[in-house]
Amino acid sequence: MTRRNFINSTSASYASLLAWGMLQPAPASALTLPANGRNHDGKARKVIVLGAGLAGMATAYELGKLGYDCTVLEARARSGGRVWTIRGGTKETELNGGTAQSCQFEDGLYFNGGAARIPHHHQLTLQYCRELGVSLQIFNGNNEAAYLYNDGGTGDLANRRLRIKEYHNDMRGYTAELLAKALDQSALDQQLTKEDIEKLVDFLKNEGDLNTAHLYKGTNRRGYKTKGEPGAGPTPGDLTDPFGLTDLLRSGFMQPVFYNVGDYIYEQQTTLLQPVGGMDAIPKALEKKLADKIVFNAPVTELRKTENGVRIVYQKEGKPTELTAEFCVCTLPLPMLKNLESDLSGTVKRAADFVPYIKTGKIGLQFKRRFWEEDDWIYGGISRTNMDINQIWYPSFGFQGKKGVLIGYYNFYSRAEAVGALPVAEREKLALNQGAKIHPQYPTEFDNSFSLAWHRIPYSGGGWATYDDATRRKYYPTLLEPDGNIYFAGEHTTYLTAWMAGAFTSAHRAVEAIHARVGQYTKK
Amino acid sequence: MTRRNFINSTSASYASLLAWGMLQPAPASALTLPANGRNHDGKARKVIVLGAGLAGMATAYELGKLGYDCTVLEARARSGGRVWTIRGGTKETELNGGTAQSCQFEDGLYFNGGAARIPHHHQLTLQYCRELGVSLQIFNGNNEAAYLYNDGGTGDLANRRLRIKEYHNDMRGYTAELLAKALDQSALDQQLTKEDIEKLVDFLKNEGDLNTAHLYKGTNRRGYKTKGEPGAGPTPGDLTDPFGLTDLLRSGFMQPVFYNVGDYIYEQQTTLLQPVGGMDAIPKALEKKLADKIVFNAPVTELRKTENGVRIVYQKEGKPTELTAEFCVCTLPLPMLKNLESDLSGTVKRAADFVPYIKTGKIGLQFKRRFWEEDDWIYGGISRTNMDINQIWYPSFGFQGKKGVLIGYYNFYSRAEAVGALPVAEREKLALNQGAKIHPQYPTEFDNSFSLAWHRIPYSGGGWATYDDATRRKYYPTLLEPDGNIYFAGEHTTYLTAWMAGAFTSAHRAVEAIHARVGQYTKK
Repeated sequence: MTRRNFINSTSASYASLLAWGMLQPAPASALTLPANGRNHDGKARKVIVLGAGLAGMATAYELGKLGYDCTVLEARARSGGRVWTIRGGTKETELNGGTAQSCQFEDGLYFNGGAARIPHHHQLTLQYCRELGVSLQIFNGNNEAAYLYNDGGTGDLANRRLRIKEYHNDMRGYTAELLAKALDQSALDQQLTKEDIEKLVDFLKNEGDLNTAHLYKGTNRRGYKTKGEPGAGPTPGDLTDPFGLTDLLRSGFMQPVFYNVGDYIYEQQTTLLQPVGGMDAIPKALEKKLADKIVFNAPVTELRKTENGVRIVYQKEGKPTELTAEFCVCTLPLPMLKNLESDLSGTVKRAADFVPYIKTGKIGLQFKRRFWEEDDWIYGGISRTNMDINQIWYPSFGFQGKKGVLIGYYNFYSRAEAVGALPVAEREKLALNQGAKIHPQYPTEFDNSFSLAWHRIPYSGGGWATYDDATRRKYYPTLLEPDGNIYFAGEHTTYLTAWMAGAFTSAHRAVEAIHARVGQYTKK
Repeated sequence: MTRRNFINSTSASYASLLAWGMLQPAPASALTLPANGRNHDGKARKVIVLGAGLAGMATAYELGKLGYDCTVLEARARSGGRVWTIRGGTKETELNGGTAQSCQFEDGLYFNGGAARIPHHHQLTLQYCRELGVSLQIFNGNNEAAYLYNDGGTGDLANRRLRIKEYHNDMRGYTAELLAKALDQSALDQQLTKEDIEKLVDFLKNEGDLNTAHLYKGTNRRGYKTKGEPGAGPTPGDLTDPFGLTDLLRSGFMQPVFYNVGDYIYEQQTTLLQPVGGMDAIPKALEKKLADKIVFNAPVTELRKTENGVRIVYQKEGKPTELTAEFCVCTLPLPMLKNLESDLSGTVKRAADFVPYIKTGKIGLQFKRRFWEEDDWIYGGISRTNMDINQIWYPSFGFQGKKGVLIGYYNFYSRAEAVGALPVAEREKLALNQGAKIHPQYPTEFDNSFSLAWHRIPYSGGGWATYDDATRRKYYPTLLEPDGNIYFAGEHTTYLTAWMAGAFTSAHRAVEAIHARVGQYTKK
């Protein structure tokens, strides 16, 4: 990444880059100059970073560039936090009596247990990928060929799978027809001129694929009959009939579980990206940059303020070990901060207590063949249902390979709580039974599984911060200010909660704040 | 690919597979049995295939499996026909006094000059990829972040670029608002029950992101202000204002050039795929299967019927060379068939004369940096304009690399005719001047280009067959029947014109027809 590109496209950090002197040409020898992160005695200022997730590692990486001496304490044996790719050999035992799992996926198969997509507008994440040499590929979020399944409903469209394209194009068709009718009936004459009405009707004819009478009578956009695709010779294709509007309206597919989380919203719009080989390519690349700066298997137990800085106690091979520094950047998820012995202020402690974290879970299911591709023509994307499994994610990589891993459930809130409370064998059973309603191939093709409930994962304790207006107003501002020499970072200190971009932007913000505080550095 | 999978998912060829005996277990030694494609004397039946495009090679490949002895005559030095990937070293000189071009792209950069996407429902193409070991990746067809540009129009939305997401979400918002209003005013009461109207209004609120008063007042789905994305700290994001409905209606974006070819239509719906490394991975893999069966640099000049078969004359190192066989499968594009000396029937000759082929062209532009990604956050997808360049395609591979090749125009009909008539230097100039209106980075970042006009490409002479109802009725049936022992295949003999799937299904159909004609073969 060139300096210019970095600057052009990082709106938030332009000021900070100026501050950091990155706009100056590099000095002939950096060591001959007082480094930005050094004290007047020339020694590097010490910073302890809690957590080797993206926020913590990015903080240490950027502070390191400025000459600070960072130590990152990480409770786990791995980096990445909630950026975690599950593959053969991955081991985990959940809190509250979880069963030990050891993943049995075949080589090359995996799923992203946590963060799983990068929106094209999350430029800071994408810039880090560029800077760190992480290769990207498309994450196929919106697949018109994936399924909707309304379980337990009534009517013709309940308890059966239908393609998203069938639902989408029928609804577009009927609503276009209805609006065209209202316009034809002059019901909206006060809104629009005659000329505009004509133009709008033209639009609706395209939008809904209406016939010349402005009626929706089906469209090839919703697909052809099975074995009725257009082909060679005298076979132009057999169209399918549209569903009835009343059936569609009573289908239940307007519920947010099917729709609202879907295709249009900003964070899930095309284009989405993912690293080639798994999301943990990002933390692994950052970890590499930090060489010996990360102490693994080092859970923090105490977080203390001292006269000139901070004192941290962590467990080293089971023994309490102390570390002091001028600053601390704490990126621990709030459910973990809650458990710490600390001198943190009451308002920070209350934030840790009361900012809600989402319960969420996923299961990866390995199948003997990629039947969703071979039989169902589904290459990536997401099927949605109101069953406990909620979403099925098809992999956006390894297309047409022999075996495959799909995400058999991705659920939230009460569904995730209920499923996450089950023993892993029961979760697998539930995923297979419910998934088989959408994919009858499940029972014969299933190999093995690995499941996780983020609210039960040690050192995470939840999916991500889920502020509502009240908690955002009440607790969020506290986390934006340092508490003594302790700064906070992580997705929970941003308006990009749940996203890796939140971790990265929060790291930049913490670095800027510390650097501003230590004051002027010697300009070249 | 297992036998079962192949059968399950190939609707059109199930009968043929039965006929071909592929449902039987493989014989202990194939050589001890009379092979299907052999005469009573045990010699393989001879078939001459004209053209080593996908249709020709698939025909030879499948006939070869059945024991026929095929020779494929190919006019060019390469296989693939209109499946052609342009990369460094690619050379071409167009008909009618074209300038010799030699592509200067850097290693690893390319564009697909012809076929460029595989719809998920083109299962035969995908099966060949599976069988031939061609790796696939997502082709990102629908990118909400790409641009629309109405050149020369009037009003606020003309002569400026806007994001597709801005247009889409505003139109969804306003149409949802208008329909909700009509429903609120009981304008459509005769159509729907009160309960259904309520459900539909709920749907519209989601669909258009309407406020509680059922009004569209903008949405974050259309994006945030430049440098106004949500971030860390006290920055929830700066929303943009929606365009006015009247402005949108008068924008001209309802024209098919912007819209109708767009996101919804069946062939371009998600998911689309492409081979890793270029579309020519498919013909190259087929070519490998045909080993010594293809004669390159062998343009056919005569196509004759004999008492028991066919006689072909082709040029071999400039000298007329004769070849005879029992059958011929002719996959030459009709503009080429037209030029052949032949015994073809009058109806076939008239089909060759009168079935229209599309004029179409592309230019690949190499740039020094991928500014569309770095500055504009565009990762794959297509921008659309009413200028001569018509479409700009951003590559769906090599993301965040140093340099990149985008397709600077992809145009059709009169636009392609006008641009294709220009000398290559003028085409480049036109692509750069018009493209710079959408991407002002063009002039400073441009490296080099390679352009093509399919109607001027030797041995193709057009993009693809474009039947209208009349030509489909009048000429198409002729091409589905053999003319003596000459069979026809190629996209022009299908309802999948322009698509690789058309070439493949037509090959299956020709193979089936020949095999049915030679009658019963010895069943195991």
